[in-house]
Amino acid sequence: MYYIGIDLGGTNIAAGLVDDKGKLLHKLSVHTPSDVDYTVIVEEMVKLSRKVVSEYGANEADIKSVGIGCPGSIDYKKGSVAYSNNIKMYDAPVREEFQKYWNIPVALENDANAAALGEYVACGEAASVFVAVTLGTGVGGGVIIDGKIFTGSNGAGAELGHSTLVHNGLPCTCGKKGCWECYASATALVNQTKIAIEKHPESLMTKIAKERGKVNGRTAFDAAKQNDSVAKYVVEKYLEYVADGIVSMVNIFQPDKVVISGGISNEGDYILKPIREYVEKYDYNKLFNKVEICTATLLNDAGIIGAAYAGKQLI
Amino acid sequence: MYYIGIDLGGTNIAAGLVDDKGKLLHKLSVHTPSDVDYTVIVEEMVKLSRKVVSEYGANEADIKSVGIGCPGSIDYKKGSVAYSNNIKMYDAPVREEFQKYWNIPVALENDANAAALGEYVACGEAASVFVAVTLGTGVGGGVIIDGKIFTGSNGAGAELGHSTLVHNGLPCTCGKKGCWECYASATALVNQTKIAIEKHPESLMTKIAKERGKVNGRTAFDAAKQNDSVAKYVVEKYLEYVADGIVSMVNIFQPDKVVISGGISNEGDYILKPIREYVEKYDYNKLFNKVEICTATLLNDAGIIGAAYAGKQLI
Repeated sequence: MYYIGIDLGGTNIAAGLVDDKGKLLHKLSVHTPSDVDYTVIVEEMVKLSRKVVSEYGANEADIKSVGIGCPGSIDYKKGSVAYSNNIKMYDAPVREEFQKYWNIPVALENDANAAALGEYVACGEAASVFVAVTLGTGVGGGVIIDGKIFTGSNGAGAELGHSTLVHNGLPCTCGKKGCWECYASATALVNQTKIAIEKHPESLMTKIAKERGKVNGRTAFDAAKQNDSVAKYVVEKYLEYVADGIVSMVNIFQPDKVVISGGISNEGDYILKPIREYVEKYDYNKLFNKVEICTATLLNDAGIIGAAYAGKQLI
Repeated sequence: MYYIGIDLGGTNIAAGLVDDKGKLLHKLSVHTPSDVDYTVIVEEMVKLSRKVVSEYGANEADIKSVGIGCPGSIDYKKGSVAYSNNIKMYDAPVREEFQKYWNIPVALENDANAAALGEYVACGEAASVFVAVTLGTGVGGGVIIDGKIFTGSNGAGAELGHSTLVHNGLPCTCGKKGCWECYASATALVNQTKIAIEKHPESLMTKIAKERGKVNGRTAFDAAKQNDSVAKYVVEKYLEYVADGIVSMVNIFQPDKVVISGGISNEGDYILKPIREYVEKYDYNKLFNKVEICTATLLNDAGIIGAAYAGKQLI
């Protein structure tokens, strides 16, 4: 049995063939057509899926389901994208449209949720409660309870990055102030780094940023590893923001496992050690098993594998 | 069919007989014996339960289950109280002990979770995701997903009051800083009122507090309703803390319904109006059904009814 997972992004559509064990066997991607109707995007997804199947040499009859991870808000009942700013969809019945070409069970998921489910398949299946946190442009979240994506009552749940970390703090793109993502996203780290460079032009970060032509999420980490004191402070404070938000999620969900993804997760133990220490010290649970915190393993393939798994759950 | 619900508190043990529809038919309470072994408390609970049954004129054979709501951390697998500071229990196998006297299915629950389930039975059964928030000495939480208490992976989940509202803010009893409960509990409101009185002794709050011999959770509300400007500011700011935390919970859980309980919930629409406005304005979901926010209906009986319902779920 095979399952197709599709990761629909603003730039690329990636489709992969996944086996029963969640292993990605073959994948392909194409550019996402821009300024087109959703029907054109769906047609592209169908074509790409069929190409993945034929290139791998599988039989279409052995494909049991398709899962699609899509940026934006999903209407689960209708199988439609209620709204996506990234791929310009509004009330788009993607499931129905896909099934016009290929009559197969189709699961439609938010892309962050699909990626969370992918990481769960890769490293969390022992967890009854599993939380995935993506530190990227924003702070994305996904919560898997008993193997299923927690979507809230209306499909829009698990917006962990939009919980408050600093009451009346920095303004967030969502319209609220002080969201966790204003302090713990990669974007936030870049801003924190820029502010530190401005205040302390003597910091090694200035030199590193100049060499690379810009400040990015690695600037402070790289300088900190070379013992630059200002950079060390920036990293320490940033990780404290990340960890404080994780403590909240731990106190709320008491997950068995928290997985951190996004570019910053490449720092591995360098970020995990202080985050684990902080959570161990400050979480509310002093009696029971402690949560395991680790970095993501699948990275870019998480969306495909998770979407495929969501499709598999339909059958 | 009848179900017994027991609300075990530090001061009283209350037991009630509940019918299939969640209606409380009869209840009794006794003082909780202090400085005794858990076995003595369990014996009291058994006696009280049997008395409720016989006083109501029911037949013991018609009692299908018992549910016990208990302050502290519950070990669900063992059916024991892992730790309770309030009633001095540590690793106490309450379920097993109860069944020595009465061989019946026994559900053991944390008391806040049981109360949340009680409110769910009373007014939330249409909700697939239901959040209860108690503004008391602390801020307690309970989350009901598809009719079941969400306990986290280890039974200690839904400590909503220990999510951060102010990073590095006021010190919390839990050891962390800036927990929601440091700003939104009744205790916090009393502190906020005291600080305002100190700064503005001319406020009507000073007079009200003097008349009552102390500052309590009503002082600011009562003065605000008489148009005292300082009190109005205290109430406004307090409700903003409450509402900001609720927005976080809404963004995380996207519940159909949030129920607020605790003494302050007696203020009814006076607190609901500003909280609803704040949540409507700042929650992340701009597309789907909005959450319904209301005050609790059961109050003191929530624990009994919820515990009974938890017992009912066992069979």
